[in-house]
Order: sequence, then structure tokens, then C-alpha cells
Amino acid sequence: MDSKGLTGSPLAITGTFLDEISHDIPSANWGCEDWAKDFAAMRQDGIDTVILIRAGYRDRATFPSKVLAKLHPTLIVDEDLVALFLGLAEQEGMTFFLGTYDSGDYWLQGNYQAEIDLNLAFADEVWERYGSSPAFGGWYISHEINTFDLGMMQVYEQLSQHLRCLKPLPILISPYIRGRKQFAQAISLEEHEREWDQVFARLQGKVDCVAFQDGQIDFAELPDYLAVNAALAQRYGIACWSNIESFDRDVHIKFPPIAWPKLRFKLEAAQAAGVDKLITFEYSHFLSPNSIYPAAHNLNRRYRNWVKSLSLQGSNDDPNNSDNG
Amino acid sequence: MDSKGLTGSPLAITGTFLDEISHDIPSANWGCEDWAKDFAAMRQDGIDTVILIRAGYRDRATFPSKVLAKLHPTLIVDEDLVALFLGLAEQEGMTFFLGTYDSGDYWLQGNYQAEIDLNLAFADEVWERYGSSPAFGGWYISHEINTFDLGMMQVYEQLSQHLRCLKPLPILISPYIRGRKQFAQAISLEEHEREWDQVFARLQGKVDCVAFQDGQIDFAELPDYLAVNAALAQRYGIACWSNIESFDRDVHIKFPPIAWPKLRFKLEAAQAAGVDKLITFEYSHFLSPNSIYPAAHNLNRRYRNWVKSLSLQGSNDDPNNSDNG
Amino acid sequence: MDSKGLTGSPLAITGTFLDEISHDIPSANWGCEDWAKDFAAMRQDGIDTVILIRAGYRDRATFPSKVLAKLHPTLIVDEDLVALFLGLAEQEGMTFFLGTYDSGDYWLQGNYQAEIDLNLAFADEVWERYGSSPAFGGWYISHEINTFDLGMMQVYEQLSQHLRCLKPLPILISPYIRGRKQFAQAISLEEHEREWDQVFARLQGKVDCVAFQDGQIDFAELPDYLAVNAALAQRYGIACWSNIESFDRDVHIKFPPIAWPKLRFKLEAAQAAGVDKLITFEYSHFLSPNSIYPAAHNLNRRYRNWVKSLSLQGSNDDPNNSDNG
Repeated sequence: MDSKGLTGSPLAITGTFLDEISHDIPSANWGCEDWAKDFAAMRQDGIDTVILIRAGYRDRATFPSKVLAKLHPTLIVDEDLVALFLGLAEQEGMTFFLGTYDSGDYWLQGNYQAEIDLNLAFADEVWERYGSSPAFGGWYISHEINTFDLGMMQVYEQLSQHLRCLKPLPILISPYIRGRKQFAQAISLEEHEREWDQVFARLQGKVDCVAFQDGQIDFAELPDYLAVNAALAQRYGIACWSNIESFDRDVHIKFPPIAWPKLRFKLEAAQAAGVDKLITFEYSHFLSPNSIYPAAHNLNRRYRNWVKSLSLQGSNDDPNNSDNG
Repeated sequence: MDSKGLTGSPLAITGTFLDEISHDIPSANWGCEDWAKDFAAMRQDGIDTVILIRAGYRDRATFPSKVLAKLHPTLIVDEDLVALFLGLAEQEGMTFFLGTYDSGDYWLQGNYQAEIDLNLAFADEVWERYGSSPAFGGWYISHEINTFDLGMMQVYEQLSQHLRCLKPLPILISPYIRGRKQFAQAISLEEHEREWDQVFARLQGKVDCVAFQDGQIDFAELPDYLAVNAALAQRYGIACWSNIESFDRDVHIKFPPIAWPKLRFKLEAAQAAGVDKLITFEYSHFLSPNSIYPAAHNLNRRYRNWVKSLSLQGSNDDPNNSDNG
Repeated sequence: MDSKGLTGSPLAITGTFLDEISHDIPSANWGCEDWAKDFAAMRQDGIDTVILIRAGYRDRATFPSKVLAKLHPTLIVDEDLVALFLGLAEQEGMTFFLGTYDSGDYWLQGNYQAEIDLNLAFADEVWERYGSSPAFGGWYISHEINTFDLGMMQVYEQLSQHLRCLKPLPILISPYIRGRKQFAQAISLEEHEREWDQVFARLQGKVDCVAFQDGQIDFAELPDYLAVNAALAQRYGIACWSNIESFDRDVHIKFPPIAWPKLRFKLEAAQAAGVDKLITFEYSHFLSPNSIYPAAHNLNRRYRNWVKSLSLQGSNDDPNNSDNG
């Protein structure tokens, strides 16, 4: 996978989640034309990878799934978002990752097998409906963990095995750090390293890319966590992406677009750690010129200017300096 | 009352609250021209009924009320919103319901008689100022309950009796369900039915329309609650409306416009239950093309398309099928 | 200092905070052009004083400070906002007050001397970089208190003494009232008066202007608090400004633009109390035609209309009536 983003530019954000079905972010209520417009903006901003955050969540679905309708007779579904996103991704030359179903229930209650069984049937249905789409290029296992969890290892393993049987596509996960901004009992860097050494040892060969969320810890801690994550991932042959959160965790409102100096800090920290690719949660709400939040339009302008200024800077550098190219 | 909304269209939203004075929703800070523009949009979207949520709340008033000024010497009031809304309703051919004063105090402390006495004087003042307006077509008793409450029965009864003496106009209430999304100790469907059987037995003949709020319960529970509400209301000769909440209760921000698939689900559930009329809380913030929330502009587009597609569909149906007409 | 705002107009808002670095308000992500546009709007609205709320906060800085970089090697800083704001203030003929650094740490832990020492060095750095700017016209000590606090008196005294040595410019503070809207254990008016009598006795001659925040108490209490504040400030020779909060503290969202009737109420209450100048927290988010919040655009229109109507009214009054001029 191309890990360096825009040709001739520095490491820019080249992937984004598509936050449908949203867990806790207000809906923009976009229809087909709105999404088409935003995919075009994404491409302009160098996005080559889009990741559907979850194809279903509780009683909500991104397409009229027969598997989910059995579980939820009152399934809430409108248009077929998977078909829409696959079509737009193909049109814009992007790779589409599909996020698995999240029951919001079984795995949180410790009933891992129910979560697995449901997802195996759901993956089959997805693959039958959309597997032939040329843009379908990866799976995203949407269940998030922050430390080693035996039951969740089984979820990842069985899902990974089954998904690889459908087609051996890259499998992505996006864990979070048990950091101070979200948890009263925060983890230490050493605990984090120990836990994830254990996780990666177990998931080696089963997961291809890991994109840690970068917003739960203090900015001052970020460089160290990024370095540990990159080193661990490399040790186990997993590509290390960074999930550059483009929303702000430091204010009352949950959540507005992030302040540009913070985003820039995190972009540069990820570059410094030598991660393989930058993705974001997520473009359409927080970083898009089409966002429902005006502050995101401004963030997009400032981000674009930054990318442009670094590209110009890069083009004046030693052409052999591949770090800038 | 015409219960079927737009002629030739399916059961669409034909009523909305006007959220002035707002209890907990940010103000749009609209002046006369803004409201005029929004009433025009409402009419385009088939709204025939506007309900002022409350003509006064604590120390805030929608007109310079002498009655309220006695209670609150520092009364907060700017322009005369009741006159403004009545004029616009008349201009757009809508029926205006006036919401009673909510002290935010007496009735919550169990001092029901103080709440009643204040409102009797307030209603007299309202009627003297605005009773001659041709658009003045109903009363909304703004005090909300979720179960039987003896003191509140007295509030409803005495207010109803007094308001009917001023002029026998329809009287509306909009209760809420003690549902899981708002209450740790949620009610069961059976308890809900028992409680409201008791309430309606008491309010029969005193209240004309009941519009339960539809957002406190899980989507999967909604069809059952709607069916119970419709059956109960019918038993006691009360018109059953549904208050289709157009804001989202599932996200951190309290509150943004609701996700369209959820709104559509609730619209269809209310149709299936055969309720008499759909109203919403509320158009101007959450469903209007003029809203301060861009996501509401998008919601309006999608809602309009849905109404249009159903109208087209309906016009191809058997013209004798009155359910679609 | 001219205390009456726009010539020929009533007491209007003539000062605003610049909320960079923001403590808890989402960033608008404005760049230079956006700020230039907003300063032009401020001038149109009669703003003659801009107050940088804090030049640094925790690990975030408004310019690449060497002093702060020693404390925070991962200092988050983008463009030089102090230079930008000083340039714009000069261009628009405004006076710029610079807010001191807030560690968000030392003084809250009772380590007052660390907060002082850091700020003395920081002030020297600021003065060396920006002291020659003609717009640099005041200091704002950004640490907020609500009652007498011995340690904080030392902070104010030592900062004041040092800042005056750099140049004897006006020194502003903006305390808050321990009011019901923010504190379960609210203060009484008498306690407030006793506490601030003690504070002002101590700070007399060390602080020139005090601008109490006006949003933590009920509207009904505001006139009394304003009167007490004005009388106390006068007794100790301190100019009494009012910090008219233009955001709403009464709704779920923290924080949207305030409802216009509330803002008008507070403006008139401050006028009635005879305060010397009105400033606001803050124009750019909550009262600006350029705000990221559409409700602020509407608030600006309504505020402008009000100022205009009062000016017209004032020009018809007795020209000797200096209260209106």
C-alpha cells in the first residue's frame, strides 16, 4: 500500500472513515448528491482510502440486510449506503474498506460468540451483495479495544479467518489508547506497550494494519505513544497507520472540528514517528469544505494551505530526500 | 379537524411547535423577517397548525404581560411574539394554538393552585389582547406529564374549564413517555397503558387532542406505544396526534437535527398506528431550510423528497384507497 | 479612557475578548484573512478595545514563546497571533490588552509563586517582542477568582507591580460571581459584597479596571449585583466595566450565542447600574456576522438594530443629557 500520501507532498491524510452509521456524532443528513460532492472534495485533498466505520449498528443498517432484519424486525435503514459509497469510491479511484457490524450489545456483555456468529453471516451477505465491486479493497473490524482482551482476540481471529476466506483483503483495526482525556484510570506508556505487545503477538498475520486513535492522551504524551505503536507494529509485521482525529476533545461540545494548531501538531508528531499512513476520523464532519460545521470549512482551508506549503517546500529540497516525497 | 395532512399526499407532518420561549434549545435569534420567511417555508411543507410551546416561562415572556410582570419585575421580553405569530399564521392560513405559562416552579414543587391561579389570570390577559385574531384556534396546555398525577389533573381540569369559557377551542396536550432514553427507571408498556387509561378517563371531554412525544423510547418499542396511545385516545374520544420529534436523542450534543432514516422510521410507524395527525417538535430549529443548523436544511430536502415520492406513489394508487389520500 | 462607547449612541459594547487560546470554546479555525474581516466588523460595531484572553494556556501558545517552550517542549503553536492582533488593532484604531499566561496548573494547586515566576519571565518576553507596538495599550491578568483568596492576591500584586514597571498601562481583571448557574453552593449578595470589598481594598492602585462576568447569576439578581459592583469599584477608584456574556448559559449546549432578549436585558441592566464600559465575552464566536454559529449572525443584526434605534432615539433627546451621548 502506498504509505506516503500525495505524490510530491509530505505525509498528508490519505484515508478517512465514513461515519455511517454514526455512534455518537450528529447526522449531516446527506443524500447521494451530497456524498458525491464530498468524495470529490476528498480526492482533491488526497484521500485514497475510505473506511465505512460500521455497516450496521444495533438496529440501524447501511443497507436492507436480511441478516440484521432477523435480529431487528424494526431495522432502521434508508438508502443503500454501501452501494453508494462503493460507486463513489470506484469513480474517484479510492479503496473502500467495509466496517463489520457492531451489535452494541453481545460483545459488551461478554457474549463474544454471538457477536462472531452474527458477523460471519453478515459478512457473507455483504460479500454476496458487494464482493464484485472493484473498489472493495479491505475489511475494517469495527470493534474497538484499548488493551488485551481474551474474548476480543477470538472475535478478531474468527472474523479475520472468515473474511480472508471470502477474499484475502487487508484487514484494518483502529484501537484507542486508555488515555487521560477519556478515562479517570488512565494507562501508563509501559502498560500500553505491554498490553499491545500481547495483542499484536496474538493478531500477527491476522490483522494487516493498525491505526491507533490519537486523541485520548495529552499532546505531550503523543510522540512517545506514536513511537511505541510504530515500533510494536513493525516488530509484528503490521502496517502502522495513525488515526488523526480531526475533532476536538478539549471543549464542552462533543464534538466540534479540532483547532488547527492541534491538528498540525498531531500530523507532525505522526510524521516524526514514521508511521506508514495517516487516516482521520473523519473528513466529512470535521475536515470537509462541505461539513455541516462552518469551522470545518476553515480547518480544510488551513489544512490545504499547510499541505501546499509543505509540498512547495518539499519540491525545493534534495530530490533524494524521500522523507518529503 | 382535517387529520390527513396534504391533500393527495400521505400522512405528512402538518403541525409544528414554535419553540419560543425555549426551555433548553439555543435561540436562533430570529426577528420578524426571519419568522415570516420560516412560516412561508412551513406552508410549503404542508404545515397548517402552529403551536406556541409556552407564552411565558419563568421570567421570560412572549409579550409584555402585566400579569407576569407582577410576578417577575425583571421580566425578560422583547418584541410581541404572539402578535407576530398570529399575524403570520393568519397570512399563511394556519391555525395557531397558544401554550400556557409555565412557572418552572410552582407545579414542580406541588403547589398546583398557584400554577392554576396564575394561568387563569394570564389566559384572561391573553384572550383580551389576542382573542379577536382569526388565526387563534386552540389552546395548548404546556405542562407535561408522563403518568397519572392527581395534582396535575386539577391543573388540566381547571385550565380546561376556564379556557373553554373564554372560547370553546380545541385543547391540546403533548405528554412524554417515561422511556429508557431519558429515565434510568423506565416505564413498561403495560404500566404506560394503565397510567394513561387513568389519565384519559379523567380528562375525557376536557382535552381534545393528545400528541405523545415519540423520542424517549427505543425505536423498536415505538410501534407498540403508538398503537396503545391510539387505542386509548380513541376509547375516550380524544384525537390522537403524534409529536414526531425532529431532533436526535442518540448523540452527545443536546440536540441536533435527527438523522433522516430515524425520522422516516417514526413517520411510518405513526402512519401504521393510524394516528390522526402528525406534528413535530419542531420545524424551525430541526426541519427547516432556514434553520441555524445546516443539517436541518439537508433534513428538509430529504423529507420533502420523501413526501413528494409518496404523493406520486399515492396518485398512482386506487383512488378509493383513502389511506393514501 | 472613553467610557461611553459610540459617540452619539447609548452605552453599547465597546470591548471584546479575543478567545485565543480558547479554554473551552470550539475553535473557528480562522486564519489571518478571517481575523482581518472580523476586526473590521468589530470596528463597525463600535469596538475600540480588544483583550486577548490569554497569551498562553497550558501547552498552547499564541506565539513561539521561548519561556513556555522550556516548560512545554511540545508547545502547540501555529502562527503569531499576538503580532496579528496587534497589527489589526492598530489598523482599526483599537487598544489591545494582552492576557497573561495561565498554566492551568500551578495556581490551581496552590503553587502561586510558580505561576508568578513563570509570568514575570513571560511578560518580559512579551514586552521585548511586542512592547513597541502602538496598539499595545493594556494588560489583562487572566487568572479568574470569585472571592478573596490570599494566594491570588499575591499573584495579582506581583504581576501588577512587574507589568507596571514594563510600562504603566491600565490593568484589567474579569472576575466571576459565585452564582447559582454555575455553583451548587452559590454566594449571597451580602457575601459577594463583603468578599469584593476585601479584594478591592487589597488591589486598590494595582488594578485599574474590573469587568465582572454577568452570566452566572439569575437575571433577576443581576441589577443588584451590578449596583454592588459599581459602588464597590467606585469606592476604591477602580473603573467598573461589565463583561456582558454573549453566550447562553441556560441550554444544554455549552455554549451557543445568547438569546437576544437576554442580551438586551443585560445591556440595559448594566446601563442602569451606571457602569463605565461594556465589554463582551466574546464577539467573534457569539456576536459576529462572521461567526461559525449562524445564530450569532442573527444576534448581530438584532444588536445592531437596537444600537441604531437607541442612537436615533438619543439624537432626539435633550443634547445636554450626557447619559445618552
